Amino acid sequence: MKLYDLELSGNCYKVRLFAGLAHIPLDIVAVDFLGGEHKRAPLLDLNPWGEIPILVDGSVVLRDSHAILVYLALNYAPPQWLPRDAADMAEVVQWLSTASNEIQNGPCAARLVDKFGYPLDKADTLRRAARIMPLIDAHLANQRWLAGTQATIADCAVMPYLALAPEGGISLADYPNIRRWIAQLRELPGFVPMPGV
Amino acid sequence: MKLYDLELSGNCYKVRLFAGLAHIPLDIVAVDFLGGEHKRAPLLDLNPWGEIPILVDGSVVLRDSHAILVYLALNYAPPQWLPRDAADMAEVVQWLSTASNEIQNGPCAARLVDKFGYPLDKADTLRRAARIMPLIDAHLANQRWLAGTQATIADCAVMPYLALAPEGGISLADYPNIRRWIAQLRELPGFVPMPGV
Repeated sequence: MKLYDLELSGNCYKVRLFAGLAHIPLDIVAVDFLGGEHKRAPLLDLNPWGEIPILVDGSVVLRDSHAILVYLALNYAPPQWLPRDAADMAEVVQWLSTASNEIQNGPCAARLVDKFGYPLDKADTLRRAARIMPLIDAHLANQRWLAGTQATIADCAVMPYLALAPEGGISLADYPNIRRWIAQLRELPGFVPMPGV
Repeated sequence: MKLYDLELSGNCYKVRLFAGLAHIPLDIVAVDFLGGEHKRAPLLDLNPWGEIPILVDGSVVLRDSHAILVYLALNYAPPQWLPRDAADMAEVVQWLSTASNEIQNGPCAARLVDKFGYPLDKADTLRRAARIMPLIDAHLANQRWLAGTQATIADCAVMPYLALAPEGGISLADYPNIRRWIAQLRELPGFVPMPGV
């Protein structure tokens, strides 16, 4: 099972993190991102959107980090990570949506500006981060994990770009519950770090 | 089962559309959106994020349109709408991510500017739409439905803001496959329209 990967990508890290925590062996293939390898064949044939991560497992090819988390959880991990009950699974999906929208366009985008020079509206990324991060911190004041009572793929999807927020100029000082929850994830067996986390 | 709803919201419409297609009875509760009913108790207690739709089914409260689709599909609809196989479900989730990020911040955001006067960067919304819509059109050149061989909640999540794109000044003229696929959805038994679709 191959993961086309970039070490500094938080989206790729979501997958490496979950694979570590759930003890799923992955064959990591480093992509020459600066050289644009993901923007041309053969990677562009695997993912016409020209993005990574990409997971290839036999005939299965997936292009989105959250879809990859769902696939790995259903096929290769205990149900804890993605509960099958409708309400419990929907609660996880709520957080996948938050990771795709508010976090991707908030703290993640702020880091893209500061660390990689992306031409995005930095003020807009900070405004979005300032809206979402207090909501997540308040949620974690009453919950040990984002969804349910155990770690799930929701935590793997949301944590990376919150832990990396300082690389976008966003301090975690005002978010004690987010910091406590990141520390909890770091203590789980199989945790793998990335630069900046 | 109550859906706190706004008729002109594409995110609320995703739920109404799927409920129609899957013949799931919903008690629709119209929210006074302009009056800010979703920004104060009791709705703000149901969803601290101050957004709609919100679904309440007994003790289950869900705040995100895609999470609501997953919940309704798992509990109240045939498996066609959200396949349980890992690869098939992951394919659906890919499109939920696309709806949460690229479509929400592309064609949906363009409509928020033009139709409702939201202070967003219109050029940025058009740039995002111009990236994602050709990719979706190309995908639909080879597929009758977004994921797999039958309609799924992926189609319900992605269609509304593409069909509403002209209300954000984005023409569908260059996207014949998207238009064909919208027409297909309209022909399904149980289809419900919304203003602009």
